[in-house]
Amino acid sequence: MTTRYFGEPIPRNEDRRLLTGQALFVDDVELPGLLHAALLRSQVAHARIKSIDVSAALARKGVVAVYTAEDLGAYWQPGPLLVPPPPIAGIVFNQRMQVPLAKDKVRHVGEPIAIVVAESRYIAEDALADIDVQLETLPPVVDLERALEKDGSLVHEDVRSNVSAHVRQCKGDYAKAAAKADHIIRRRFHYDHGMSSPMETRGVVAQWDARASQLTIWDTTQAPVFVRNGLAAMLGLGERQVRVIAPFVGGGFGPKIMIFYPEEVLLPWIAIKLNRPVKWIEDRLEHFVATTHERGQIHDAEIALSRDGKILGIKDVFLHDAGAYDPYGLTVPINSQCTLLGPYVVPNYDSTFTAVFTNKPIVTPYRGAGRQHGVFVIERLLDFAARELGIDRAEIRRRNLIPADAFPYNNEIIYQDFAPLEYDSGNYEPVLDKALAAIDYARFVTEEQKKLRAQGRHVGVAVACYVEGTGIGPYEGARVQVQANGKVSLATGIGTQGQGHFTSFAQIVADQLGVDVRDVDVVTGDTDQFYWGAGTFASRGAVVAGNAVNEASKVVREKILKQASEHFECAVEDLELGSGQVSIVGVPGKSVRLGELAMRANPMRGAVKPGTEPGLESTQYFGPPKGATANGVHAMLLEIDPDTLMVQILKYVVVHDCGTVINPLILAGQIHGGVAQGIGNAYYEELMFNEEGQLMNASLADYLLPTSLEVPRMELGHTVTPSPLNPMGVKGAGEAGAIPVGPLFAQAIEDALGLGERKIELCEIPLSPNRLWRVLSRADG
Amino acid sequence: MTTRYFGEPIPRNEDRRLLTGQALFVDDVELPGLLHAALLRSQVAHARIKSIDVSAALARKGVVAVYTAEDLGAYWQPGPLLVPPPPIAGIVFNQRMQVPLAKDKVRHVGEPIAIVVAESRYIAEDALADIDVQLETLPPVVDLERALEKDGSLVHEDVRSNVSAHVRQCKGDYAKAAAKADHIIRRRFHYDHGMSSPMETRGVVAQWDARASQLTIWDTTQAPVFVRNGLAAMLGLGERQVRVIAPFVGGGFGPKIMIFYPEEVLLPWIAIKLNRPVKWIEDRLEHFVATTHERGQIHDAEIALSRDGKILGIKDVFLHDAGAYDPYGLTVPINSQCTLLGPYVVPNYDSTFTAVFTNKPIVTPYRGAGRQHGVFVIERLLDFAARELGIDRAEIRRRNLIPADAFPYNNEIIYQDFAPLEYDSGNYEPVLDKALAAIDYARFVTEEQKKLRAQGRHVGVAVACYVEGTGIGPYEGARVQVQANGKVSLATGIGTQGQGHFTSFAQIVADQLGVDVRDVDVVTGDTDQFYWGAGTFASRGAVVAGNAVNEASKVVREKILKQASEHFECAVEDLELGSGQVSIVGVPGKSVRLGELAMRANPMRGAVKPGTEPGLESTQYFGPPKGATANGVHAMLLEIDPDTLMVQILKYVVVHDCGTVINPLILAGQIHGGVAQGIGNAYYEELMFNEEGQLMNASLADYLLPTSLEVPRMELGHTVTPSPLNPMGVKGAGEAGAIPVGPLFAQAIEDALGLGERKIELCEIPLSPNRLWRVLSRADG
Repeated sequence: MTTRYFGEPIPRNEDRRLLTGQALFVDDVELPGLLHAALLRSQVAHARIKSIDVSAALARKGVVAVYTAEDLGAYWQPGPLLVPPPPIAGIVFNQRMQVPLAKDKVRHVGEPIAIVVAESRYIAEDALADIDVQLETLPPVVDLERALEKDGSLVHEDVRSNVSAHVRQCKGDYAKAAAKADHIIRRRFHYDHGMSSPMETRGVVAQWDARASQLTIWDTTQAPVFVRNGLAAMLGLGERQVRVIAPFVGGGFGPKIMIFYPEEVLLPWIAIKLNRPVKWIEDRLEHFVATTHERGQIHDAEIALSRDGKILGIKDVFLHDAGAYDPYGLTVPINSQCTLLGPYVVPNYDSTFTAVFTNKPIVTPYRGAGRQHGVFVIERLLDFAARELGIDRAEIRRRNLIPADAFPYNNEIIYQDFAPLEYDSGNYEPVLDKALAAIDYARFVTEEQKKLRAQGRHVGVAVACYVEGTGIGPYEGARVQVQANGKVSLATGIGTQGQGHFTSFAQIVADQLGVDVRDVDVVTGDTDQFYWGAGTFASRGAVVAGNAVNEASKVVREKILKQASEHFECAVEDLELGSGQVSIVGVPGKSVRLGELAMRANPMRGAVKPGTEPGLESTQYFGPPKGATANGVHAMLLEIDPDTLMVQILKYVVVHDCGTVINPLILAGQIHGGVAQGIGNAYYEELMFNEEGQLMNASLADYLLPTSLEVPRMELGHTVTPSPLNPMGVKGAGEAGAIPVGPLFAQAIEDALGLGERKIELCEIPLSPNRLWRVLSRADG
Repeated sequence: MTTRYFGEPIPRNEDRRLLTGQALFVDDVELPGLLHAALLRSQVAHARIKSIDVSAALARKGVVAVYTAEDLGAYWQPGPLLVPPPPIAGIVFNQRMQVPLAKDKVRHVGEPIAIVVAESRYIAEDALADIDVQLETLPPVVDLERALEKDGSLVHEDVRSNVSAHVRQCKGDYAKAAAKADHIIRRRFHYDHGMSSPMETRGVVAQWDARASQLTIWDTTQAPVFVRNGLAAMLGLGERQVRVIAPFVGGGFGPKIMIFYPEEVLLPWIAIKLNRPVKWIEDRLEHFVATTHERGQIHDAEIALSRDGKILGIKDVFLHDAGAYDPYGLTVPINSQCTLLGPYVVPNYDSTFTAVFTNKPIVTPYRGAGRQHGVFVIERLLDFAARELGIDRAEIRRRNLIPADAFPYNNEIIYQDFAPLEYDSGNYEPVLDKALAAIDYARFVTEEQKKLRAQGRHVGVAVACYVEGTGIGPYEGARVQVQANGKVSLATGIGTQGQGHFTSFAQIVADQLGVDVRDVDVVTGDTDQFYWGAGTFASRGAVVAGNAVNEASKVVREKILKQASEHFECAVEDLELGSGQVSIVGVPGKSVRLGELAMRANPMRGAVKPGTEPGLESTQYFGPPKGATANGVHAMLLEIDPDTLMVQILKYVVVHDCGTVINPLILAGQIHGGVAQGIGNAYYEELMFNEEGQLMNASLADYLLPTSLEVPRMELGHTVTPSPLNPMGVKGAGEAGAIPVGPLFAQAIEDALGLGERKIELCEIPLSPNRLWRVLSRADG
């Protein structure tokens, strides 16, 4: 294989469609007789429903139907859990699923109570005000610690507590290690994550074809195959009767994996019931309470160290806010638990978490998916240890890095993919070195910072390390086919939310088959075009689907060579692929175009031999034995105004090892976007709930997203440690950028303001000028 | 495998949908912004186009566009011939393809000149009258023999004659055989076939999705895959950008295989050009001139026999009316040439045909596809031989039947599938015996006929034999999948025009997987649901697609058993399938439902092992090495009124061997329908062209179709000689009913009227009271 595209910064194939407005998004779907839906959502966080009167709404002109839980009857019986709890001894897991329309209680602001279907969205929205809902409000469960107090209000009475889950995982014997430690540092950390705020909110269009008994759903989901399977089960249909199309989606980031959102369940049911197509597009206000968040954890963590800064063990006990329901299982807190271990040798680990039901929107993964919580804890502990032990912050990290010869490195505890947390490969020190060099760390801490301080400037440096488990199973598939026009068709089951699949997958195919990368037409996220798969999440697209694409391409390559060798009556070894054709090596002019071979591979006379297939096509699946572990180091120079506490990032460095790189341009985009969201998380975005469980800043006027002015240019560096777990050696990179930004901010601000000397520690995220001011006031107070 | 459905007369799964109006036909497709098309067709058979002025039509309110050949430019460049000429030495084949809109000349009445696209069909039709076409009429080529005279009018000037093709095929040495013969009988035969007259005429809806660059076509075609491939090539699209859906189609019968009809080419082009969907539904008047016919041949044939009635050889020279273009190649005359040999030992054969261009609609296969022409010739020759040699008509047939131990029997000449005409298996004599017994032949000819004649009744008996080459390649495929609800999904590439695929294919699956036949959901004729294949024609559905279904089912069965053996931790041998579940033999209560196994086969945690596939699914292809040969005997008692020449069929017997029978109910329906069309061909349906090339009876008021009053009840019998060419042993049965009806009518009428004694021979089809009267008058002269 002559590599021409793999590893090159190929501009994205999909951008022309996106930039010229030719990419289909869910709201672009128009159908004859299309109806529109709007949802009546709870305005209170916790209440018993006494009565719902929809008669006035039904009487409004243009309203076609109004449904409440009563109308749904037994509809919505979730099948076997999509995300079952991992096989961990002693695990407690109380799974409570949301129903599409609230039955007896509402459990968070925004929970749907009724749905109006009308000839227009305007009419539907107006009719919401006609619905009379009588509620008996209940004390809301908001605070994580108070939620666990006895005799408090219960989100789910039948659980008898607000415990969603309780999990302890251990490695070694922390108590023994702590007993021998020279130093033990113990802190409490608050880490709040926010919402994903994609450019495109959620949306669903459902259409029922009664003649064909065929349901079609356009959905902003990240997991069309799961939606297809689940809907079929709920509606009593075969999977082949349900087609889910996740077209271009304007950002996913995790919350769009959730299965099922009420609207995804309601609209297909309505389309069948009314035998008319129906559309719902989430508005931005709804998005704040109707789409899942990630939110907060409270960690009580301690680290045991030797005098020279070696980690002997870590103990962590944390609370995790699950929200009102926990359909997504334990992915987020398990990720926190596992990712806390970072790139470090941690011989003893004792981690316990309690996931807590609260009267807030459901928590599911959002880019990073709980990893940043864990990384914040370990990175902050190391910062504090460095200070106490008088070791440089970079140096203490270096001393604890897992050595290059220790891979695969088994952390023994169970990861979200149910496999032991074993890092497949890595070489961490060069990554750290590269980042330190790029930020000119040594010179900055020894000289530059003092110079700047002398000029009255408060500039700090920070460096933070992380690992990320990526590319988990179960599998994805791909179908590659040479068409008669010489273009190559590629279909895979995963959808796209901007990750560049149309390009990076095309690169893989183009190299294997020797065609122009622009001649590979990619179809994703349409269950009729590719039936099997899981979805785009967990930084797994390139690893799992990418390798399936590669496997399918290899088989097609073999078919091409076989077909050409029959055509030329020569040996396969004498042939080479390139420029969309097969040529005989060293015989100028002896070549045949792939399109012609494709036609020859589907003869219309004669027989296709038994056991063979027509055409130059192959469908292959790839499932890695376990996830691949990416890693990286972020470093930052940050200046802060000590009066206003406004920050400016002077330099931002990311050095990253995600194994083999398919397209550095797309990778850079992933890193950029991740860091931008990380910066939002670290300094700007905070979901502010009051004691009533009301989200106080539920609009983009109040919920502060970083803009292009807040997000700096980044300097990117890579090292490559190929994963041994897949033939291409790739690891995932989708989430990494967002993960270590919190501790980096805290560390840099502390350094810039010299807070260490004032014994002030930043143990919470997000920071913000306001919050930072409160912390400083409190400390000074 | 416990057979429960295979071979049983299962009622049809599809009938509920059809009878309740839930089956989608092309005209049911409604789309937002749908436009409608109407075509301006030539009113003359042969003319040069001087000018076309569409300005008035364009000015009509509601007209969106009017196109002529000029607008199409270079569009429509057919690729490699779909039906290339067979590899026969010395073959002449002048292929001339129709263009979608006539360019310089019109060559038959009904040829499209312009297409109007308007907001409604009404407007479009009205606008046709606004178009001003100036023509210079040319002498039409109508008569087959005069067409070949020198210096006559030429349908295609560049061919320099009206010869479409010239083919000679020989077996043995006829001249040598004739020289030694005791008797030689030579006659001239005219055999005209008619049109298929399906309940649903043709129709096309085309939709272009500009965002997705995706074309969807709903088409009454019998060959959606070919249409997809051809359109993609013509439009410069990849095949994956084109979806062709042949939904339920109200009768195909052959003419709907034709690729391409102008409308199939025009509507997609228009949909793309206007970026709006467009519909055209053929009206019944159009159907007479815009859909292909089969029409006539003139045979000069002679048979050489020994004294005892053994065939020594046959020589046949015939003219075949190809119509104005010959896109479909030589299938019809090759079938005539090959099928003439019948079930008889014909040691020497010399057959030559000339296909002739005429200014009439294009000729392509119609149920029987030229076979009835050949069968008419051999069966009539044997009748005349019997009379001359004083041998009973049934007896002379019996003496010449290929003996049961002679199979496979190679007739050496090349068949339409490019393979030598080798009969795979058969046992002909029992078929003849069974038919003769059913009609009580011996008693009738010795006693009954005389009794009836004495009563003044003119009743004749007839018996005719035929073979039919069926089930040709190249291949079909099928995808079988167990769904989580336990139902089985089956998809195949061929479409349905009423053949019962939804049932017979379901029976195959149901038996293999042990499920209820109603739990097998079948999808056909949608290129997005199944990509590869050829189509429904040539009596090949059950043979080729049916065996693919069987192969795929077998693989799924193995997967089910493997999955269940892992589930139960037992040996596959201990398991049995039935009632939609797998049970351990002899262990009551130990069973697991197929749907549950399907879910287990697609785990969402853990990895799918490399080289394996998720789910209980398999796609398999089947391509027979060559066609399977079915055979049969029809026998009939017919009464005729010697004054009015009206006939009444007193008894109709079909004994048929199509190998293993999947569903005798469906098979009976196929035979019934075939015989009905055969009766129409033999006695009622005649396409009457005048010297100007005008079809004089182009309406169902004038073109006489047999109704349920004319079509008798039939007595059906079967013998089974499984085909060795496919694992199920099936042979095709779709066309057989229609094939031998012509000679049966001629023979019965001769017998009823005692024409033999009057030396009157019926050597033409269709007969009809009028035509028969002319023949008798001419003979009585």
